[in-house]
Amino acid sequence: MDEDELVRLIARHAGGVAPGDVGIGDDAAVVGDTAVCHDMLVQDVHFRWTWTSPADLGHKALAVNLSDLAAMGASPTAAVVGLAMGPGPLAEPGAVAAMYDAMAALAAACGCAIVGGDTSASAVTVVGVTALGRLPASGAVRRGGARAGDALCVTGSVGAAAAGLAVREGHAPAGLDPDGNLETALLRPTPRVAEGIALAKAGVHAMIDCSDGLARDAGRLAAASGLGVTLDLDAVPLAPGVAGVARALGRDPAAFAASGGEDYELIVALPGDAPAPDGVPLVRVGTLTAEPGVRAQPAGRLDPAHLGWRHRVGDA
Amino acid sequence: MDEDELVRLIARHAGGVAPGDVGIGDDAAVVGDTAVCHDMLVQDVHFRWTWTSPADLGHKALAVNLSDLAAMGASPTAAVVGLAMGPGPLAEPGAVAAMYDAMAALAAACGCAIVGGDTSASAVTVVGVTALGRLPASGAVRRGGARAGDALCVTGSVGAAAAGLAVREGHAPAGLDPDGNLETALLRPTPRVAEGIALAKAGVHAMIDCSDGLARDAGRLAAASGLGVTLDLDAVPLAPGVAGVARALGRDPAAFAASGGEDYELIVALPGDAPAPDGVPLVRVGTLTAEPGVRAQPAGRLDPAHLGWRHRVGDA
Repeated sequence: MDEDELVRLIARHAGGVAPGDVGIGDDAAVVGDTAVCHDMLVQDVHFRWTWTSPADLGHKALAVNLSDLAAMGASPTAAVVGLAMGPGPLAEPGAVAAMYDAMAALAAACGCAIVGGDTSASAVTVVGVTALGRLPASGAVRRGGARAGDALCVTGSVGAAAAGLAVREGHAPAGLDPDGNLETALLRPTPRVAEGIALAKAGVHAMIDCSDGLARDAGRLAAASGLGVTLDLDAVPLAPGVAGVARALGRDPAAFAASGGEDYELIVALPGDAPAPDGVPLVRVGTLTAEPGVRAQPAGRLDPAHLGWRHRVGDA
Repeated sequence: MDEDELVRLIARHAGGVAPGDVGIGDDAAVVGDTAVCHDMLVQDVHFRWTWTSPADLGHKALAVNLSDLAAMGASPTAAVVGLAMGPGPLAEPGAVAAMYDAMAALAAACGCAIVGGDTSASAVTVVGVTALGRLPASGAVRRGGARAGDALCVTGSVGAAAAGLAVREGHAPAGLDPDGNLETALLRPTPRVAEGIALAKAGVHAMIDCSDGLARDAGRLAAASGLGVTLDLDAVPLAPGVAGVARALGRDPAAFAASGGEDYELIVALPGDAPAPDGVPLVRVGTLTAEPGVRAQPAGRLDPAHLGWRHRVGDA
């Protein structure tokens, strides 16, 4: 069962929300005027201790959740943290403090705070963060509001985290990340909090965060809107260094970047002639279509086998 | 480092909330008019698959969080669930559905819903639940509001879950739980949601849920209030079957019940002459004192080595 099938199964068995609220199946749920989301980082699935420090882990566990709030247009208010601690680096003196320091720093930078949580011993480390956000008066920006003909845009470049992972996992030479920018993209992603708020205010039709790859997440936005999407591979903005890693892996750079995950950019659908809000770097990468499905142009360059991103550190 | 020390360390490094809110260190945090709490169940720490079904796990993971909300006087509104799935029973057909069905049933019984979450593969199973609740207009009931001379009361009997654990773990004969009531207390605790709301409305001075044992949690309530507590061991209400298990373990029954964890009753401090709210079974078990510390009467029966409850399924 893949992740989307599992989410549908869970929604069938445990879904159901009050009228006006949002339940399982968007970036965050909505309860009244509060957005709430929960994402975990699991040792040896989402990260390895060989290339992740406790501070990296804390930063990223919060960042991925703030990215989900951003995709609803919400302003972060608070987060709670569940830390199941396995053997390894977290047992070193100062490691737990360093992890929470990193979370507190990111929280403060994004206007929220760590207000509670739980800790436990465990055989492996799992960090689960729940983030709460305040929705704009206009309500949450959903995945499903796109219209046929809308432009599909992304708030920056993609592929850096996937390239960083390929380097850290030893699938590509370390020399391809001489300044560590790819590693930073992998380990310390910057959630697009201010951009999400500005895009919501600008009235974009639909929004999703790019955590599982541009192609897959654009496909989710399109499907939630009852539409399809055509991606223009030549327009996909590659982060510096991504093309070199993709070529070292024998992959088409644009296809690699469009299918690699953990970019934590925002993907939005909006009228093609709508201006980007001030300070939000929007790059058009495709078009929403009445015809369902995900297609790439030029045809044949995006391997359907690489469309997904399975959040497995062992994957190339 | 014990759990309380770890919580203080985390609070030093990541604490800090807006004025009027509540951060790390109570049963739940408070963000505006919302209470939020997060508790995890970790395989081989909080439960074993040899005596826990997927449905039991789902029920209990939500129940322990609803108990935390109850201890603030909050009405549950929503929960999100992080499920890191290890090998074992959850891989069986229908197991994930059974787990979420059990959560949805308890949520519905308590007026809330499962609105989101995350799933992942993992080497061991960890379930983290975040529950949200609406606070009463009078605000949250804190741990720290007790006054010297207040009566310390509990909303029912204690010791059943600890006795059930001793039986399930093979430390006491299975014949001591002939009807499975101790097992049910361990696996399917009933959070005191309605009672917490009623006690808040009645204006109790302080409240905490009894998850780590009556003696330890009463001590936490007292310490948060700048007080101490004297427990009357002869007044501790034992659940049926608890005395027999305690004697089989060579323990004083009242001391065993007062130090066993996972009762999920509410412990409250209120004036000694205050009536219990309608429908709330309050039993007086002690007195808040100006002198700090936890004392038991008769002296010498509560072994300090057994005061705590370390949430370790291997412990007797």
